Amino acid sequence: MQQETKRGTLVVLSGPSGTGKGTVCGVVRNHLGDAVRYSISATTRKPRTGEEHGREYFFFTKEEFETLRDQNGFLEWAQVYDNYYGTPRAFVEEVLASGKDCILEIDPQGALQVRKATDEAVLVFIAPPSLEELRSRLTGRGTESAEEVEKRLSCAESELAYRDKYDYIIINDDVETAAAKMEAILLAEKCRSARNLDLK
Amino acid sequence: MQQETKRGTLVVLSGPSGTGKGTVCGVVRNHLGDAVRYSISATTRKPRTGEEHGREYFFFTKEEFETLRDQNGFLEWAQVYDNYYGTPRAFVEEVLASGKDCILEIDPQGALQVRKATDEAVLVFIAPPSLEELRSRLTGRGTESAEEVEKRLSCAESELAYRDKYDYIIINDDVETAAAKMEAILLAEKCRSARNLDLK
Repeated sequence: MQQETKRGTLVVLSGPSGTGKGTVCGVVRNHLGDAVRYSISATTRKPRTGEEHGREYFFFTKEEFETLRDQNGFLEWAQVYDNYYGTPRAFVEEVLASGKDCILEIDPQGALQVRKATDEAVLVFIAPPSLEELRSRLTGRGTESAEEVEKRLSCAESELAYRDKYDYIIINDDVETAAAKMEAILLAEKCRSARNLDLK
Repeated sequence: MQQETKRGTLVVLSGPSGTGKGTVCGVVRNHLGDAVRYSISATTRKPRTGEEHGREYFFFTKEEFETLRDQNGFLEWAQVYDNYYGTPRAFVEEVLASGKDCILEIDPQGALQVRKATDEAVLVFIAPPSLEELRSRLTGRGTESAEEVEKRLSCAESELAYRDKYDYIIINDDVETAAAKMEAILLAEKCRSARNLDLK
């Protein structure tokens, strides 16, 4: 008998800059391999050197973007200065239908749009252990000016205000522990009763 | 600074006889040790040889049981023939307050009572891969008569009808995989946003 492919889980991931979202996801993808995919965003900004359509972004013209948007083709979208950014439904759908989990890394405004657009999104917020710890991480990087650090901290505080809208909060005080929590969430979500009512 | 003890998770576990609830929990408790405790039920039936008050059961008189019941002292209770059985709130509360998870193994009627009695219960149903597989496991034990097997299967079907009322369904086709799912659920539940809003 052919095994039916179980639909993947759509994970919306947010968290202030400096909380280590990327590092945590890297560890998770290292463990789970091809079973987890990142969503690819669409944008109207011009490709930079080395960027490829369908790899870093789907590069759309303004007209293409607006047409797809008006056809309800985005799970979420936003205009940033003169450019549009958005998450094409079709790509996410393809990933989920193939049985892989899809991680969508976006800001809280986008996350709440996705929550409205579909009832299958699992919202995960990665938080720093404390704002002091976040300050020290941002300072420790040595890549940002003091002014830039303050700007990011203030931005972090605004993002943190949304964390109660999420299903899960992972406090990242240790990357391996945080990754284990993310993997536990992925596995637990697969055990949701609505997804396991079939009985042979 | 003193680390605040995080409240444990209350897990209500059901599943037909022969689905391996006990074996799965055994593996989980082997991995997690003292971090997970079983709830201890109260009963008015007489202790059997070797049974100890506060270990197998809390042995109550009928009057003690009824008094506690009328004080809303049970998360769930039932009368089976001439005896009462129930889950004392106080014991579960003590386990959870100490930061340990508490597993309460009961039938669907009890599980739904607990769901009403508290909003912190996580309901997990352990299901067999199929009724055919369950039949073969019950037959394979060799301890039950054909009639007894049919009775258990019919009972299993009645219990399975409740599985959509649960938060999670673990299909036990492999004990280690099922235990890993249970552990994932325990860890994921600790990441629920309502439990992680504190920010230092």
